Amino acid sequence: INVIVNLFSCFLQGILERLDAGEIVIGDGGFVFALEKRGYVKAGPWTPEATVEHPEAVRQLHREFLRAGSNVLQTFTFYASEDKLENRGNYVAEKISCQKVNEAACDIAREVANEGDALVAGGVSQTPSYLSCKDKAEVKAAFRKQLDVFMKKNVDFLIAEYFEHVEEAVWAVEVLKESGKPVAATMCIGPEGDMHGVPPGQCAVQLVKAGASIIGVNCHFDPDTSLETVKLMKEGLQAAKLKAHLMSQPLAFHTPDCGKQGFIDLPEFPFGLEPRIVTRWDIQKYARKAYDLGIRYIGGCCGFEPYHIRAIAEELAPERGFLPQASDKHGSWGDNLSMHTKPWVRARARKEYWENLKPASGRPYCPSMSKPDGWGVTKGARELMQQKEATSEQQLKELFQKQ
Amino acid sequence: INVIVNLFSCFLQGILERLDAGEIVIGDGGFVFALEKRGYVKAGPWTPEATVEHPEAVRQLHREFLRAGSNVLQTFTFYASEDKLENRGNYVAEKISCQKVNEAACDIAREVANEGDALVAGGVSQTPSYLSCKDKAEVKAAFRKQLDVFMKKNVDFLIAEYFEHVEEAVWAVEVLKESGKPVAATMCIGPEGDMHGVPPGQCAVQLVKAGASIIGVNCHFDPDTSLETVKLMKEGLQAAKLKAHLMSQPLAFHTPDCGKQGFIDLPEFPFGLEPRIVTRWDIQKYARKAYDLGIRYIGGCCGFEPYHIRAIAEELAPERGFLPQASDKHGSWGDNLSMHTKPWVRARARKEYWENLKPASGRPYCPSMSKPDGWGVTKGARELMQQKEATSEQQLKELFQKQ
Amino acid sequence: INVIVNLFSCFLQGILERLDAGEIVIGDGGFVFALEKRGYVKAGPWTPEATVEHPEAVRQLHREFLRAGSNVLQTFTFYASEDKLENRGNYVAEKISCQKVNEAACDIAREVANEGDALVAGGVSQTPSYLSCKDKAEVKAAFRKQLDVFMKKNVDFLIAEYFEHVEEAVWAVEVLKESGKPVAATMCIGPEGDMHGVPPGQCAVQLVKAGASIIGVNCHFDPDTSLETVKLMKEGLQAAKLKAHLMSQPLAFHTPDCGKQGFIDLPEFPFGLEPRIVTRWDIQKYARKAYDLGIRYIGGCCGFEPYHIRAIAEELAPERGFLPQASDKHGSWGDNLSMHTKPWVRARARKEYWENLKPASGRPYCPSMSKPDGWGVTKGARELMQQKEATSEQQLKELFQKQ
Amino acid sequence: INVIVNLFSCFLQGILERLDAGEIVIGDGGFVFALEKRGYVKAGPWTPEATVEHPEAVRQLHREFLRAGSNVLQTFTFYASEDKLENRGNYVAEKISCQKVNEAACDIAREVANEGDALVAGGVSQTPSYLSCKDKAEVKAAFRKQLDVFMKKNVDFLIAEYFEHVEEAVWAVEVLKESGKPVAATMCIGPEGDMHGVPPGQCAVQLVKAGASIIGVNCHFDPDTSLETVKLMKEGLQAAKLKAHLMSQPLAFHTPDCGKQGFIDLPEFPFGLEPRIVTRWDIQKYARKAYDLGIRYIGGCCGFEPYHIRAIAEELAPERGFLPQASDKHGSWGDNLSMHTKPWVRARARKEYWENLKPASGRPYCPSMSKPDGWGVTKGARELMQQKEATSEQQLKELFQKQ
Repeated sequence: INVIVNLFSCFLQGILERLDAGEIVIGDGGFVFALEKRGYVKAGPWTPEATVEHPEAVRQLHREFLRAGSNVLQTFTFYASEDKLENRGNYVAEKISCQKVNEAACDIAREVANEGDALVAGGVSQTPSYLSCKDKAEVKAAFRKQLDVFMKKNVDFLIAEYFEHVEEAVWAVEVLKESGKPVAATMCIGPEGDMHGVPPGQCAVQLVKAGASIIGVNCHFDPDTSLETVKLMKEGLQAAKLKAHLMSQPLAFHTPDCGKQGFIDLPEFPFGLEPRIVTRWDIQKYARKAYDLGIRYIGGCCGFEPYHIRAIAEELAPERGFLPQASDKHGSWGDNLSMHTKPWVRARARKEYWENLKPASGRPYCPSMSKPDGWGVTKGARELMQQKEATSEQQLKELFQKQ
Repeated sequence: INVIVNLFSCFLQGILERLDAGEIVIGDGGFVFALEKRGYVKAGPWTPEATVEHPEAVRQLHREFLRAGSNVLQTFTFYASEDKLENRGNYVAEKISCQKVNEAACDIAREVANEGDALVAGGVSQTPSYLSCKDKAEVKAAFRKQLDVFMKKNVDFLIAEYFEHVEEAVWAVEVLKESGKPVAATMCIGPEGDMHGVPPGQCAVQLVKAGASIIGVNCHFDPDTSLETVKLMKEGLQAAKLKAHLMSQPLAFHTPDCGKQGFIDLPEFPFGLEPRIVTRWDIQKYARKAYDLGIRYIGGCCGFEPYHIRAIAEELAPERGFLPQASDKHGSWGDNLSMHTKPWVRARARKEYWENLKPASGRPYCPSMSKPDGWGVTKGARELMQQKEATSEQQLKELFQKQ
Repeated sequence: INVIVNLFSCFLQGILERLDAGEIVIGDGGFVFALEKRGYVKAGPWTPEATVEHPEAVRQLHREFLRAGSNVLQTFTFYASEDKLENRGNYVAEKISCQKVNEAACDIAREVANEGDALVAGGVSQTPSYLSCKDKAEVKAAFRKQLDVFMKKNVDFLIAEYFEHVEEAVWAVEVLKESGKPVAATMCIGPEGDMHGVPPGQCAVQLVKAGASIIGVNCHFDPDTSLETVKLMKEGLQAAKLKAHLMSQPLAFHTPDCGKQGFIDLPEFPFGLEPRIVTRWDIQKYARKAYDLGIRYIGGCCGFEPYHIRAIAEELAPERGFLPQASDKHGSWGDNLSMHTKPWVRARARKEYWENLKPASGRPYCPSMSKPDGWGVTKGARELMQQKEATSEQQLKELFQKQ
Repeated sequence: INVIVNLFSCFLQGILERLDAGEIVIGDGGFVFALEKRGYVKAGPWTPEATVEHPEAVRQLHREFLRAGSNVLQTFTFYASEDKLENRGNYVAEKISCQKVNEAACDIAREVANEGDALVAGGVSQTPSYLSCKDKAEVKAAFRKQLDVFMKKNVDFLIAEYFEHVEEAVWAVEVLKESGKPVAATMCIGPEGDMHGVPPGQCAVQLVKAGASIIGVNCHFDPDTSLETVKLMKEGLQAAKLKAHLMSQPLAFHTPDCGKQGFIDLPEFPFGLEPRIVTRWDIQKYARKAYDLGIRYIGGCCGFEPYHIRAIAEELAPERGFLPQASDKHGSWGDNLSMHTKPWVRARARKEYWENLKPASGRPYCPSMSKPDGWGVTKGARELMQQKEATSEQQLKELFQKQ
């Protein structure tokens, strides 16, 4: 297998060459959630100062995703815009500059990518500046600051991800396009569309028109819901006679019960999501479904651990012709159980078993679905947010208190 | 906080000095499950050749547990007896010697322990030799082989863990005692006792008489069930007027529905356990309950990730007087949510909220409990196993086919 | 209370006078399900020959609904068209004529109605003739045959209920209008509309144009879903500037998981629906919600037992000014528990307790939702059914076998 | 079938002759719950004044059970002791004498029994006098008062049922034995035994020694738990070398989660038990299991509707050689669905389908199990109750307030 991987790597091309050639590109998983559980990221701020504070922890996680089959390593620069880092500054023991965080992220990603010849993607995400109604120039300046680092460090391509408002996503794409590098753009929206009510199909059209070559969704919703959204995006592009590659990086949590704003409004967010974690078999189903829908850049977001990424690579091994390295430590559909001492455990060493298992929660006093919070404030808050007037902290607070 | 930790470390003593002084000792979490998800351990064999193949991955996990508050780093030598490694040889790409695996495990644990002055414990676990009815001398020889490495590498103390039969556990303790180092012994049993029907109280008595200074349970059952078992052990010792320190290292999975053999018989084992994963708040309740029961060596086993260990350290911070390093990235009972932009998420920044949350599974088509497998064969198979005559692969197979 | 009821009865008017005056009219519950459980109706055929075979059982159920607060007693003539009775003839021990069944139904309903001065409504429902593509004249003839009995027995008004196709419902209304009596029409559809894809709003318009003075839904969906459908009907009428009274008689089963054809496609139909049965408190919420939506004819269908009807009457007692007779044996919101010997049971004697209770199923091995059957055949079968060509038994069978 | 039934009836013998001959005797279902839902009994007091107020409702329910297969009609005299009726007097519109209630109950039961030649059993149940610590003579006097009516009305045999304390049950049996008629005795206990801690086996021994020919359990626990208790009773009798016929009349609610005092302590009691209602298929499994355990008097208690009793009769039809009358309206294991128009509903017309169905609750926001109330007060309250000193209303109240 190593031989095949290495041979394959010789032909490693840029992201668009690969997608244009019909290859499947496997993304990586969720850094903030994985590193929060490992002790290096704080829930709430979710900022990536670990690239400076604990580079070995970030490096190790990159390596695990690479082993699991990731073809792209995203720089750990989520929420690493200057305004965000300052905003959250009080959480950080010593103040670490935005530039340092972004540079370290690029260096670590490149170091590990070289171990397996994966691509490095520099990423930007939504900014507090936009939410507090700063103007276009100011918001764009924040993206440009990160882009400067990505250019200096010469990442392979760029991703604008985790945008709730297509307007801001378009601004981000416009900035990233200045670089001349390929740009991907994913929004954290569901089938109901962005926070201003723009439906997924229209979001897709705007992003492609702004210059994105790859579009799709990431975060906020489970695999099934995310694929529904990408399908709507695909239909939007078809209707507008536009072309782009499709991409999906959903949550690794089941969220059939969440509303327009996704898992953040679920009562379990972020410290009680465990019973919702998807299995590797759920992911194999997701990978197949994504592939059948025409998506070729398939990865994950919050909750995705290395074994989830491996599940994508294993499901699509027939199409790709090879398994990831980490499959040395995994059997297809549980076949590594075939030598277990107990006959009834051996009986689980088959695809049909795992495919059909309905896993119990072991929690008989818990329900299977929750009512999202924030629905009470939906009518008021969301209408206002759609006009972008109530997005300041203060306004939301007042609004909430009135209700 | 760092200052406190360092000051404290100066006084670091041996395991018995600490426990005798009434200190709380926090164990570490589960290596085989965590490293399986990271791509370095194969489910089924569960052997630790990663110590040689990928030392950086093992090192990183040790570091995370250390940061999370572990006072003991166990060498990653689970199932690392020579007979087990050979038994599973066909899974290992290149044959790696038992000695090499055990030595590397000691080196890595010591290297990380020195970063925080934690103790290193060398561990042995149940052997295929015992299950296939080899005699006492042969079984003991397997333990002695590992012990030789532990002595050469000068670990701080020894643990005999994951034994289903008290007879074998006693043999292990007898071997480990030859070293003169303190010995802890934990069995992977529930309140019904060992596989030959010896109740927990009697198991405890036999282990202490064999020389164990610390006794308890690990693996196979959830925190609540494990504490019930330790309680029975404690009562057994009291009745026999024996003294020992108590220890618990349970699963991080809810298993209210499993039978005598624990989670292995659940249909979800090992690839569908996700909905059963405990939250950090479940662990805080466990830590408190364990403490109240008089247990002072409190850790975890399969499923325990670094953030679960941190939860033990945070719950018992008032008693211990300090927080672990990883609490730099965690607020007490969710207080890091107090600055979230959404008011309804900020409303989750309090103990009462997380303490009472009944987290939904997001899986309305799944049940909350399962019927364990293997119950159908219980009557036949278990009775025979209690006589130790049916434990050979062949006999079990025949038995199973008859049913 | 009896005095109030009697005084009130003196002023008893026709159905339209009451509704026009803004009064709340409480319907009755489900006869076929209740009598199936009592041993007088066969599931599958669901025909009402009990009116002849066991009049005392039918009479008793009418009486219970009357006591519970029903202002309308519907003749037990569900599926009592001649074609249906013949179709199902093989189930009936001795052949009983359509006329006899319908006449007996009228006599029993009138006898009990006189005990409390309730109104008697003669009812027709969908016919096998329509489903097997008989022409309009033939289908209308079937309705006319039942209508002849209703006229002879002088019922107070007429209901066309349980229609899946608005076309057939319109034909029924046209026939019933020939009588000169007020006509109500309810369809067994959900928010997706009728089986030919006509949305609820349009169904409502067609029914009112055909002559119905009261329109709404009955059966097939739970209270919440049914109210959604009636809301769509109301909006359809408003858009068309038409006026009619609104009526809802939903299931007493929770069906959040059913598809377009309602509870019939749920795997639990009809012999495993028990865990879905709604509580009296669910019904109080339904009654309030229906009232707030402007519905004034509020009753129930399959699964509604007398105590469910009483719950409607109790919830709306403030608006109506009186309680039903059966409330002599019931306290408001559990206040009859206030003298229980156990203090913790006495603590349940309050509205807040029952309103917020999330009742457990006691079935930890069961899921909370099911996947409807028949969805696999939806695409094929339903498209054809919408063209009404595949509705013959034979055609459906062939279709099913192909899939 | 009618012919068979009639032929059979010719040979109708007394209860003991039938049981001694090895016949299966089918009991009836629960009157208080069924009539509460029909509007004739008030939850809380649960007294049977309906025998006087609404004899037609009581008569109809008896008839339904007779049709469903009951061989015994119990007089509706539950909680009809004079002290109980007086205690609850404030609930009864007009005061109706204890004698009148009991006489009417006997008359109605006999009238219906004659329609099918079933036996009539007069029943007594636990008294407030005992709970408020009246002496033996006074408690016995209460039973004797009811017995006088049963003798005057010449019931066929007697049942002492629904006793939580074996001491009181023994007193009841002693009184009933004075009549010379056969006596059955069932306690409302679970495997943990009576409220003073007497285990089921010892309860059985005491009841048989007091003169009961038939012993077992009724109410408070679900079928599975009740059969466990009867098994313990059977073993107790075997150990004591005593003989008696066995009887079980459990709840028709799933209660895997209730404590020592049964379903009364569940938060859903008595107005939210719907999701726990057992299906007819659950009852068929219960009937088979009861039969296999050697129980020959098989019936039900609260929650048992006529169709549940029919399920017992259908399951045991092979052993008994005939079906009940109500099976005219029911097919074996759903075979009446074989002519349904929808092929996927026809596919449900088979035993395997219903036997394996795990019915969904349709309630994704509800848990599957509850924590019983009253456990918080267990330690205090129960210890006192075991000494019988705290059973007065006042004492319990004080106790509760302290907690």
